Amino acid sequence: MEALVYHGPGRRAWEKRPRPEIRDATDAVVRITTSTICGTDLHILKGDVPTVTDGRILGHEGVGVVDDVGAGVTGVRKGDKVLISCITSCGKCDFCRKGMYSHCRSGGWILGNAIDGTQAEYVRIPHADTSLHRLAPDADEEAMVMLSDILPTGFECGVLNGQVKPGDAVAIVGAGPIGLATLLTAQFYSPAEIVMIDLDENRLRVARSFGATRSVNSGDGEAVRKVMDLTGGAGVDVAIEAVGIPATFDICQSILAPGGRLANVGVHGKPVELHLETLWARNITLTTRLVDTVTTPMLLKVVQSGRLQPGKLVTHRFGLADVMKAYDTFGNAAREHALKVILQGASPRDGR
Amino acid sequence: MEALVYHGPGRRAWEKRPRPEIRDATDAVVRITTSTICGTDLHILKGDVPTVTDGRILGHEGVGVVDDVGAGVTGVRKGDKVLISCITSCGKCDFCRKGMYSHCRSGGWILGNAIDGTQAEYVRIPHADTSLHRLAPDADEEAMVMLSDILPTGFECGVLNGQVKPGDAVAIVGAGPIGLATLLTAQFYSPAEIVMIDLDENRLRVARSFGATRSVNSGDGEAVRKVMDLTGGAGVDVAIEAVGIPATFDICQSILAPGGRLANVGVHGKPVELHLETLWARNITLTTRLVDTVTTPMLLKVVQSGRLQPGKLVTHRFGLADVMKAYDTFGNAAREHALKVILQGASPRDGR
Amino acid sequence: MEALVYHGPGRRAWEKRPRPEIRDATDAVVRITTSTICGTDLHILKGDVPTVTDGRILGHEGVGVVDDVGAGVTGVRKGDKVLISCITSCGKCDFCRKGMYSHCRSGGWILGNAIDGTQAEYVRIPHADTSLHRLAPDADEEAMVMLSDILPTGFECGVLNGQVKPGDAVAIVGAGPIGLATLLTAQFYSPAEIVMIDLDENRLRVARSFGATRSVNSGDGEAVRKVMDLTGGAGVDVAIEAVGIPATFDICQSILAPGGRLANVGVHGKPVELHLETLWARNITLTTRLVDTVTTPMLLKVVQSGRLQPGKLVTHRFGLADVMKAYDTFGNAAREHALKVILQGASPRDGR
Amino acid sequence: MEALVYHGPGRRAWEKRPRPEIRDATDAVVRITTSTICGTDLHILKGDVPTVTDGRILGHEGVGVVDDVGAGVTGVRKGDKVLISCITSCGKCDFCRKGMYSHCRSGGWILGNAIDGTQAEYVRIPHADTSLHRLAPDADEEAMVMLSDILPTGFECGVLNGQVKPGDAVAIVGAGPIGLATLLTAQFYSPAEIVMIDLDENRLRVARSFGATRSVNSGDGEAVRKVMDLTGGAGVDVAIEAVGIPATFDICQSILAPGGRLANVGVHGKPVELHLETLWARNITLTTRLVDTVTTPMLLKVVQSGRLQPGKLVTHRFGLADVMKAYDTFGNAAREHALKVILQGASPRDGR
Repeated sequence: MEALVYHGPGRRAWEKRPRPEIRDATDAVVRITTSTICGTDLHILKGDVPTVTDGRILGHEGVGVVDDVGAGVTGVRKGDKVLISCITSCGKCDFCRKGMYSHCRSGGWILGNAIDGTQAEYVRIPHADTSLHRLAPDADEEAMVMLSDILPTGFECGVLNGQVKPGDAVAIVGAGPIGLATLLTAQFYSPAEIVMIDLDENRLRVARSFGATRSVNSGDGEAVRKVMDLTGGAGVDVAIEAVGIPATFDICQSILAPGGRLANVGVHGKPVELHLETLWARNITLTTRLVDTVTTPMLLKVVQSGRLQPGKLVTHRFGLADVMKAYDTFGNAAREHALKVILQGASPRDGR
Repeated sequence: MEALVYHGPGRRAWEKRPRPEIRDATDAVVRITTSTICGTDLHILKGDVPTVTDGRILGHEGVGVVDDVGAGVTGVRKGDKVLISCITSCGKCDFCRKGMYSHCRSGGWILGNAIDGTQAEYVRIPHADTSLHRLAPDADEEAMVMLSDILPTGFECGVLNGQVKPGDAVAIVGAGPIGLATLLTAQFYSPAEIVMIDLDENRLRVARSFGATRSVNSGDGEAVRKVMDLTGGAGVDVAIEAVGIPATFDICQSILAPGGRLANVGVHGKPVELHLETLWARNITLTTRLVDTVTTPMLLKVVQSGRLQPGKLVTHRFGLADVMKAYDTFGNAAREHALKVILQGASPRDGR
Repeated sequence: MEALVYHGPGRRAWEKRPRPEIRDATDAVVRITTSTICGTDLHILKGDVPTVTDGRILGHEGVGVVDDVGAGVTGVRKGDKVLISCITSCGKCDFCRKGMYSHCRSGGWILGNAIDGTQAEYVRIPHADTSLHRLAPDADEEAMVMLSDILPTGFECGVLNGQVKPGDAVAIVGAGPIGLATLLTAQFYSPAEIVMIDLDENRLRVARSFGATRSVNSGDGEAVRKVMDLTGGAGVDVAIEAVGIPATFDICQSILAPGGRLANVGVHGKPVELHLETLWARNITLTTRLVDTVTTPMLLKVVQSGRLQPGKLVTHRFGLADVMKAYDTFGNAAREHALKVILQGASPRDGR
Repeated sequence: MEALVYHGPGRRAWEKRPRPEIRDATDAVVRITTSTICGTDLHILKGDVPTVTDGRILGHEGVGVVDDVGAGVTGVRKGDKVLISCITSCGKCDFCRKGMYSHCRSGGWILGNAIDGTQAEYVRIPHADTSLHRLAPDADEEAMVMLSDILPTGFECGVLNGQVKPGDAVAIVGAGPIGLATLLTAQFYSPAEIVMIDLDENRLRVARSFGATRSVNSGDGEAVRKVMDLTGGAGVDVAIEAVGIPATFDICQSILAPGGRLANVGVHGKPVELHLETLWARNITLTTRLVDTVTTPMLLKVVQSGRLQPGKLVTHRFGLADVMKAYDTFGNAAREHALKVILQGASPRDGR
């Protein structure tokens, strides 16, 4: 088969690789029909993720068709259309039993990281029963592949951890795909205001069309003042960090009302300065989280009920064999006005 | 009357002051029968709290007898023995209605800060109905005065915010009065382990006698390693910061298990470095809080039921007129083996 | 002034009464500009509410203008437009401090019950600061008066107690004004399905237009089977009882999925049979609640943000002086297709 | 091997049966070293549990040593000492993923019910990885076997569902083994009062020695009045039903304070009358639950930390081969002053 392979910082290739096979009784092999590229894949290509080594097939998002299953797999069978969770979960360890699949003792985020991933014709999925979700044969694959990672990430790390409630004032810093996924799922809880903050006017425009009630361009360094003005000096109930750098974290900690929640979604590479000299007395809650994908079954229900259309995050489509070009587009997201870039598997596409 | 008056950094005096009077219909004037000194009073004396200005009577903890009430006060009357909450709460504003008395629009921590406090023969208490708690005439005043501030502070900011649960491993950094109050109230939830961390062997000894299952002397800079060893490398479920400096905060963030909670209790004067480059993926929750004293009625019940003996935090006793000497002792707490220092009102002592 | 006065079962009159005056320092007198009639008022007229005695002015819902305030009132002043909460709350007692205003030691549901109510030109409101909500001068009074009682009742007793969550299957039994208020506010949490159950096709039609995804006419006694069919045999996550009789309660307990919540909103006059012989093992939660109106400030925000239009519950309008006729209409709600019936105060209407 | 076999209502025998074998890859076979008898086993013998048919080996509690495992078992191996959970859980189905193991699609309470149980020399355990808990070789088996069922049942169904909190007034109706297990675990949360209610003075005496602060003999029909008197007319915050008949349920619903929680633990055979005509306005929460055993890992930690000594529930010991006599004793619990009756496996007892 062919796959997108990482060869050290800045180096990737679409090349031949042996087709994956069942190793453990709980494995499945899935033929990829739809995949996509994540911001994290770009981080990997910069060399920022040391657990990813030369020769690794990238990708942790995908929809596909089960091609083979191990003897211990009972929940899916050959021919089933499935959603691949970006988090592999054994279902047995102490963390899994607490719903913290992100820290599964033999799973977690391993696809396209510690083991080969989904930007390939086939992928091996360990702990298949608890890491795949069966889909209807006619499921909308482009919508569904958003549930591999970005929808549960925005929802769990941002919305649930931020405890968004009806009537709240919410700010989301960062209007990339993850920030927009947060915006979409924040609306499950009917906040009164959602202020979107970004440097890119195009993304802010998209954010408004996706339900942001206000937008703030932070390019002038005045984001904090503007948010305080918009909230009559009160600050926001929830600030969600969806970028991953000190400057955006700093906006978040500066706009919180007393009692506010700061939910970090971004992947950070450096420490940040936390202003405890003022925050110690402001009754705030700050959370971090690697997505657990515990809410994926619920998100599937909400998508099926029509209350959420994640497909609107898709801006570009490529054949899987054109993944090198897709990376070029996604890597220049601002210029290309790219959000999520779909990779379509080679042949028999089901349910499209 | 006489009172302990702040006269700028490093300067305090026991001097004559006019006796306070009712100003608003919701005020009460209370004759102090028992008061005490808080670590925050020492911070004030260092000049660290700019809201406290020359001429202010210090103190925000006290038990006393109601001497006079305004026309709008319905919950207490002259002659009632009362506990004074360190937090003044109007009961009407949006923050009070949410249980966030610490941010009351016309209250919060104002005693011994924005208005005159309790280290005096008499004190005026605004919003008396919602800032005083009636006590039995024979209540143990030394135990009760611990409920003005340190018990609810340790419990709300440390134990509740840290979500201490049965079976948890808990670490408390700082074995001063607040850390020990946290230790006492953490036991309400039956954690499996409570590790106390401090530099002072005497305080660690006290901590063990108060229920700490382990103690770690952090003097050698090895506290993090020791806690990780004690927990078999897992880290703790809850780390409670009860000092207020970057070094102790750093211990807390370094010993948290995935999914752990870091509850800040300490009053910080400087920012801290938060290691989001590792913590972003560890599903942690960090909280700050100025005590709301919402749990004071519950704490009163628990003390009355005999399940909590806060009086054991008392190490020294002085007459109120000897408050200058009491400050000297409390200011040299380590040398004097001092925890809480009781100030006894001149005379008629009720209920002792 | 004139008012609607109860004179024992089945007897009501629009008659002259002395205008109310300030009695306690915390009272306000409010000139009613908009009121309405509640299903509970009909219960009273049947003689079902023994606390209501001959001579009582009825009504516990209203918007008006403050005409006078006592010396202790600080939050509203003469001329302010205000929303009257159906629940009077002192803000000081143990229940109020816990957010259980419904059980306030000197309040609770007293308007139009233990003291004179709002179907009058003027009404005295005890504990004004904590029982009135200030409105903008141009607030939409018909929308706002829905926040006196039915919106918070549906939301708190039905939606919050039922813990409605994104993706849930919800059933609401009873499509009267309270059931519809529950339906409107349930949508704050984006359930996947809301099944409305009633005997009246007109109300079911309204329910569908208000966001019910399914409707079931229970007239044939097959409601339970139909709901089980609609849910593929699984039952619902949340069943909300909004009628108050054994038959509708019975539907609720029969359609719950394991782990389901049954939230009672209806006012019951008789015991019900609870099938613990099957439910003991089904991990259900059943709640009851007299509305606390703790969520009124939040509901005000959501109405102001435009996410909720409670005005659409209004089907009829009468002048206050025509309240006798309004009762006739509301008392024949099914025939008249009546939901909420607005009573408009005599003259200077503000903000309409 | 030999086992205790049910042969229809009132008929049981200790008889030869084939030794169980691995059927599915996820099975284990466990040699029983310690078992016990549950009140539910008596219900079965009365013919009250129709899912139990002639020929079934009874028992759902046990500690033992793993004798054999299927190919898919990874968490335990031959020779491991294990605790058997009374609830079998696959770890994969929707209910298991939500922590509702009691309703596992291929498990739940099946041992000694739908499949053969633990009152035997050997037992087959399906879904072994997620239904067994590994113990230390020297674990105290008599203490541990209390964690198969009664400790998690009392804790989850009574204490957690009742939301016992520090300072609460709690009543437990029924001082049998389950009620006493509830009493022991309620103390994890430091309630101010625990009132134990039963007909049997001996059990009330035991309850007081286990930490009940008050006891009420309900034999005179005055239990409700007595509890109301003990609580100064306020009623209790939490009432826990640990018997399973209408009369005891009725006590619970009659002693609840406004805002109270009624947690049902008892197994009921008949409907009860729920007094919604008064309770509708009292803001109560009523819960039911078949134990999920999600808290077993936590309970293991608490027992290991020494904060809980469940072994003190043991009153009698028999060899497994004397199980017929053990049933006679347990069946006459009041006369025999029996609580939990231990069944000791025939030979090599580990860790005693």
